[in-house]
Amino acid sequence: MTTLVVAYHSGYGHTKRVADAVREGAASVPGVQAALLDVTQAGDAQWAELAAADAIVFGAPTYMGGASGDFKKFADASAKVWFSQGWKDKVAGGFTCSQNMSGDKYSTLMYFVTLAMQHGMVWVGTGMMPPRQPGHPDELNRLGSSIGVMAQADNVPPEQSPPKGDLDTARAYGKRLAEKTRALRR
Amino acid sequence: MTTLVVAYHSGYGHTKRVADAVREGAASVPGVQAALLDVTQAGDAQWAELAAADAIVFGAPTYMGGASGDFKKFADASAKVWFSQGWKDKVAGGFTCSQNMSGDKYSTLMYFVTLAMQHGMVWVGTGMMPPRQPGHPDELNRLGSSIGVMAQADNVPPEQSPPKGDLDTARAYGKRLAEKTRALRR
Amino acid sequence: MTTLVVAYHSGYGHTKRVADAVREGAASVPGVQAALLDVTQAGDAQWAELAAADAIVFGAPTYMGGASGDFKKFADASAKVWFSQGWKDKVAGGFTCSQNMSGDKYSTLMYFVTLAMQHGMVWVGTGMMPPRQPGHPDELNRLGSSIGVMAQADNVPPEQSPPKGDLDTARAYGKRLAEKTRALRR
Amino acid sequence: MTTLVVAYHSGYGHTKRVADAVREGAASVPGVQAALLDVTQAGDAQWAELAAADAIVFGAPTYMGGASGDFKKFADASAKVWFSQGWKDKVAGGFTCSQNMSGDKYSTLMYFVTLAMQHGMVWVGTGMMPPRQPGHPDELNRLGSSIGVMAQADNVPPEQSPPKGDLDTARAYGKRLAEKTRALRR
Repeated sequence: MTTLVVAYHSGYGHTKRVADAVREGAASVPGVQAALLDVTQAGDAQWAELAAADAIVFGAPTYMGGASGDFKKFADASAKVWFSQGWKDKVAGGFTCSQNMSGDKYSTLMYFVTLAMQHGMVWVGTGMMPPRQPGHPDELNRLGSSIGVMAQADNVPPEQSPPKGDLDTARAYGKRLAEKTRALRR
Repeated sequence: MTTLVVAYHSGYGHTKRVADAVREGAASVPGVQAALLDVTQAGDAQWAELAAADAIVFGAPTYMGGASGDFKKFADASAKVWFSQGWKDKVAGGFTCSQNMSGDKYSTLMYFVTLAMQHGMVWVGTGMMPPRQPGHPDELNRLGSSIGVMAQADNVPPEQSPPKGDLDTARAYGKRLAEKTRALRR
Repeated sequence: MTTLVVAYHSGYGHTKRVADAVREGAASVPGVQAALLDVTQAGDAQWAELAAADAIVFGAPTYMGGASGDFKKFADASAKVWFSQGWKDKVAGGFTCSQNMSGDKYSTLMYFVTLAMQHGMVWVGTGMMPPRQPGHPDELNRLGSSIGVMAQADNVPPEQSPPKGDLDTARAYGKRLAEKTRALRR
Repeated sequence: MTTLVVAYHSGYGHTKRVADAVREGAASVPGVQAALLDVTQAGDAQWAELAAADAIVFGAPTYMGGASGDFKKFADASAKVWFSQGWKDKVAGGFTCSQNMSGDKYSTLMYFVTLAMQHGMVWVGTGMMPPRQPGHPDELNRLGSSIGVMAQADNVPPEQSPPKGDLDTARAYGKRLAEKTRALRR
C-alpha cells in the first residue's frame, strides 16, 4: 500500500475543502491510501503517521503574504524530523487558498517547496496547462498555477466557495501526486 | 521637476498598455515628468535618461515563470551602473502582465524588487487593498497584488485586453509612485 | 522626533544581537528614537507603539526555510492593523540570522518585503556593495545581501556569534533606515 | 540507458566548472549517460537532445539578482516545448554560482524550480544537511543550500575557484539526480 498524508491548516474551512479534494483525488488511485492531518493537532500519533507516509502534501491559507502562522509552527516543529532526515525522499506537494485571485499565493507555495527541499523530499507540481478561460469558476487550473494548487475563496461559507474549478484542480493534483508516489516506490 | 521613467519590455503590446497607464498616472501629478523607455532599445541616451531619473519603474511580461529574457538582458546590462551605484536611492516600482490570473506573476515582481535592492533603490508597492469582487474586470486591483501591478491579458489584441480594472490600477500606481518620489526628493 | 521600532523574534539570542545592532545604528542618527520590540510579547502597548512609529524593521531567525513561526504568528496578528491600513507609508526593513552562510535567508527577507507591501509600507534595503573578501567575519556585508541584513551565527552562545562583520552591517543598516525615515517624514 | 543533460550558461567559466562536476557525478552512476549543453548554442540538435533526456539540470550564474539573461532567453525559447509539454515528468535540478556567499542565489534556484514546474517536471534538491563548519572551502554543502547547488567563486580564474567543497557538492548532487532519475524510469 502506498500512503499519502495531506498535512493542512485551515482557518475558516475553505482550505479544508481543498485538502479534502486533494485527499479524494489521491485515494482514487488503486493501491493508494490517503489521509487528512490537521497540523494544529499534531501529537505523537500524527508525527508517526507522517513518518510512515510515502508522500506528504502541505496545505495552508495564505495569510499576510505567506503560509499561516499555525502552519509555520508545525513546519518549525518538523525540525526534529529534519535532524534525522526522517522525511528524506518522500514525495511532496502543496496547495493554498485565499481570497485574492493572485495575491501572494506563489509566496506560500514557494515556501512549501523550500520546506520540502530542506527535508530532502521530491517535489511534484500540478503538471497542468493554463485554462482556456482564465479565472472562469468551472475551469481546471483557472488561476494558472504549476508549482501546486492555488485556490480562491470568496468571503462566504466554505460550502459555497472555492468554486468547482478549484476543487476539480485539487482532485486532479491529488491523483497525480498519488500516481507519482506509487511509481517512485516501485 | 521630478522625473520618472517606465523601463519596460513588451512582447505583443499588452505589457506596453500597462506601461502607458503607469506613465499616464505618474504624469498626472503636478511637477512630475514621466517617460516610457523600451529596454530593448537602450543606448547611451536611454542609459543617461535612467541615470537622471528620480524614479524607475520596471515592467515586463511574465514568460516561463519570470521576467522576460529581453528584460533580463537589460537588467544584466545595468551591472555597469550598479558598479558605481548610479541608481542608489532612486524610487523603484514594477509591474507585469501575462495570460493567467495568477500564474507566476509574483516571481516577476519579486525579481524586480531584488534588482532594485541590488541598485540600492527604495521600493514602493501599490498600497492597495484587495478588490470587493476578486477578478472582476472593472475592479481596481482585481488580482489582489501589493508588491506591484499584476495585469492579466487574454490572447486578443492589446486594444481589447488587459481590462479597464488593470489599467486603472496601473494608473493609480503610477500616481502613487510619482507622489512618493516627489516627497522623497524634497 | 522620528521613531523606529525593531520588531523581532529571537529563539536563542543570536537574532536579538542583530536586532540590538540595528537599533543602535538607528539611534545614532540625530533626531531619531529607536526601540526594540519582542513580537512574542506584543500586547496593546506594543501595538500602539508600532502604530505610532515612523519605521518598523522586521527581524526573525530563518527556521525550516522561512521566518520563524513565532514571527509569523505576529505577522498574522497584524491583519487587524492591515484592515485599516494603519502602517501605510511607514518605512520598512528586515533582517534574519541562521547557521548557514546562505541557506534560505533570502526566503525570509522576501517574506518581510511581502508583508511590508501588504501593509503599504516603503521598503529600504541595505544599499551596500558586496565585500572584498566574501565571508570574512570582519567584513561589512560579508554574505552579500541587499534586500536586508543576512547574519550568520555558529552554534555557540550569542556573545560569540554572529561575528563583528554582521553586527557592523546591522548597525550601518539601522543608520540608513533611520536616515531615510527622517528624510521621508520631512 | 538513462540520460541526463546539464543545460547551463557560464559567463566566465566558473559556472561551467560546477556544470562539469554535476555531469561527472551523474556519469558515475552505472547505466547513466550525462552530457553538457551550453544553452547559448541551442540549435535543433540540442533541443532534440533535451527532448530525449530523462533529466535536465539547469545551471546559470546569478547576475543582478537572478539567472543570467542568456539563460533566461533559453528558458523563454523553451516555451515551444512547453506548449506540447515535451519535458513533462522529466527529473529537474539546478545550480548557480556567483561571487557572494549568499547574495541572491536563492532567487536563481527558485526561478529554476518555477521553470521546471511550468514544464511539469519533478524537482529533486540536494538532499544534504548543513556543513559542520559553515563556509569552510573544503566542506560539502558549505553554503547550506537544499533546493539545488549554490557555489561561490572569487574573482580569479575558474581553475582556482569555486573551491573543492562546492565542486564536491555539485558532484554529489549530480549523483543523486542520476540515481533518482534511474529509479523514476523503472
